[in-house]
Amino acid sequence: MLNIRRMKQKTIREKVIFRPHFKTHQSSEVASWFMQEGIDKITVSSVSMAFLFAEQGFHNITIAFPCNIREIESINHLGATSGLNLLVDSAATAGFLSTRLYHPTGIFIEIDTGYHRSGLDWQDQKEIRKILNILDGSDKAFFKGFLTHSGDTYHAGSRTDILEIFENTRKRLQILKNKLNTDAILSIGDTPSCSLAREFGGIDEIRPGNFVYYDLMQHFLGVCSIEEIAAAMACPIVSVYPERNEMVIYGGAVHFSKDSLTIKNNKVIYGLPVKITESGWGKVIPGSYLTRLSQEHGIIEVTGRFPDQCRVGDLIGIIPVHSCLTANLMRERTMILES
Amino acid sequence: MLNIRRMKQKTIREKVIFRPHFKTHQSSEVASWFMQEGIDKITVSSVSMAFLFAEQGFHNITIAFPCNIREIESINHLGATSGLNLLVDSAATAGFLSTRLYHPTGIFIEIDTGYHRSGLDWQDQKEIRKILNILDGSDKAFFKGFLTHSGDTYHAGSRTDILEIFENTRKRLQILKNKLNTDAILSIGDTPSCSLAREFGGIDEIRPGNFVYYDLMQHFLGVCSIEEIAAAMACPIVSVYPERNEMVIYGGAVHFSKDSLTIKNNKVIYGLPVKITESGWGKVIPGSYLTRLSQEHGIIEVTGRFPDQCRVGDLIGIIPVHSCLTANLMRERTMILES
Repeated sequence: MLNIRRMKQKTIREKVIFRPHFKTHQSSEVASWFMQEGIDKITVSSVSMAFLFAEQGFHNITIAFPCNIREIESINHLGATSGLNLLVDSAATAGFLSTRLYHPTGIFIEIDTGYHRSGLDWQDQKEIRKILNILDGSDKAFFKGFLTHSGDTYHAGSRTDILEIFENTRKRLQILKNKLNTDAILSIGDTPSCSLAREFGGIDEIRPGNFVYYDLMQHFLGVCSIEEIAAAMACPIVSVYPERNEMVIYGGAVHFSKDSLTIKNNKVIYGLPVKITESGWGKVIPGSYLTRLSQEHGIIEVTGRFPDQCRVGDLIGIIPVHSCLTANLMRERTMILES
Repeated sequence: MLNIRRMKQKTIREKVIFRPHFKTHQSSEVASWFMQEGIDKITVSSVSMAFLFAEQGFHNITIAFPCNIREIESINHLGATSGLNLLVDSAATAGFLSTRLYHPTGIFIEIDTGYHRSGLDWQDQKEIRKILNILDGSDKAFFKGFLTHSGDTYHAGSRTDILEIFENTRKRLQILKNKLNTDAILSIGDTPSCSLAREFGGIDEIRPGNFVYYDLMQHFLGVCSIEEIAAAMACPIVSVYPERNEMVIYGGAVHFSKDSLTIKNNKVIYGLPVKITESGWGKVIPGSYLTRLSQEHGIIEVTGRFPDQCRVGDLIGIIPVHSCLTANLMRERTMILES
């Protein structure tokens, strides 16, 4: 909740639209926290997720994934009751939507400012103009702006690197906007940039998602403190092997995903253990690491003193490396949240 | 279906109990194929999975995960209608179960023959005897046998290495059984051993799971041919970038997991693209690889000629690196199965 308030304050101060990404949590409980804070514009990554949150009362939704035209029926169905923005990065998709949408729908053109995942190259004015022309001729698909996701900040080496990527993204989007002489909304998304940038000069909208929980990846990037991480998984201890300095938890790749982090001494970890307390969880247990995962097993390696009160049947908390994937995998299981 | 029949024939020929692991598919459709083949003994990895398949009519179930004693109520509930075997690797858990089970329940002691994930070391006779003594005094928890999972075969370099690991496992379980002078059932589980071993001398039960679909990991290990792989994911193409030799599919880490394989030229892949046909899928598309994954995006790199008929909105098939995790993640989405 604190993380949400902090980010909201920043968007008010910097006068940018706050359109948080809901794919990180996919939880109606967390969605209701946003609602309580008066946030009504949201981002999702699939049509089914849009349906989910539309049912909960969100009716201003950007589906920030290159539009899958095979889902046109669902999109039209949803568009009857909710205001939608779709993402497009080809003339083919724009052409399809321009004639097949039933309801007025906003269209963001996805721009690749350097991450090279999806989106049109920011210098590819020809294709972008082609899309703008197609949209000009449509009475249902309305051009809304340029949207980018600089996911390379998640692999940056330092805060300085993150801010440099952000600065490049910002400049490139502005150059594009000026050249095409449009009144496009410029929308960015990555949590590292949204968390670290002090001002957004020229950017109109931010769509961070991960900041709700943050995670170890964000912490080791320098984006958040360990105390700001607001998600841990409570896992039952099923085996304890003091003689080989390990214990086994019920919590594996199907719960955590295989995203890992390399920390000091080249140790590869999938999470950090914390003690579960009555009100949440305590500090990271020193010298213990979640170092191996198979499908359902997690192996905790203990390099220091074996932690107290770790018996078979106890619960132990794990702070995940990547909360987005963990939350997605854990929708059916208990996850402890700090509200 | 063919893979199931082949494995069943082998178990009949070699006179071992066939207790397939259902965690790979977790599908009632695939479960019904086993039922049609007369298979009534199954393995699962969680109490909830046991409930699922008990509802479908399977009543001889081994829950092959170190027993989570926090679930004792559910276990007793399930035990009222289904025959269960539980897995134990500590005197603490055995002691708990010996007094807290309501119904007669089989107990396998998990033995670590070298993989070092869970289980008691095969040489740790002291602890194993302790568990046997506890079970001797219980009128509900009955010792059934020694169970192991040699997951190290999944990381072996060659067929020879796999067979060597299997041979070690087999010998170690037999030594243990002889020393303790019990009539224990010896149960092994890994698909590579179960697929490659020609005879099981002394092993009484096999619990392979992955063989139902197999996957690229098994193929590159030499365990199956590419034609034996029986699962592919149908993914919509959402963006096509011929100029950078890439296309983007809707299919990312939330669908495939981040298990990867390093193939020739040190290329790291998450899957291989195939053409979808009316009856399933065709051969692997040469020179195309699923090389990058983010949460929902998959990026296919095209090194050769750009494949025909890859337009926005088309479906493309992906043969996954690890079918267990993919199937787990995909329970809610279409997956094409070869039956």
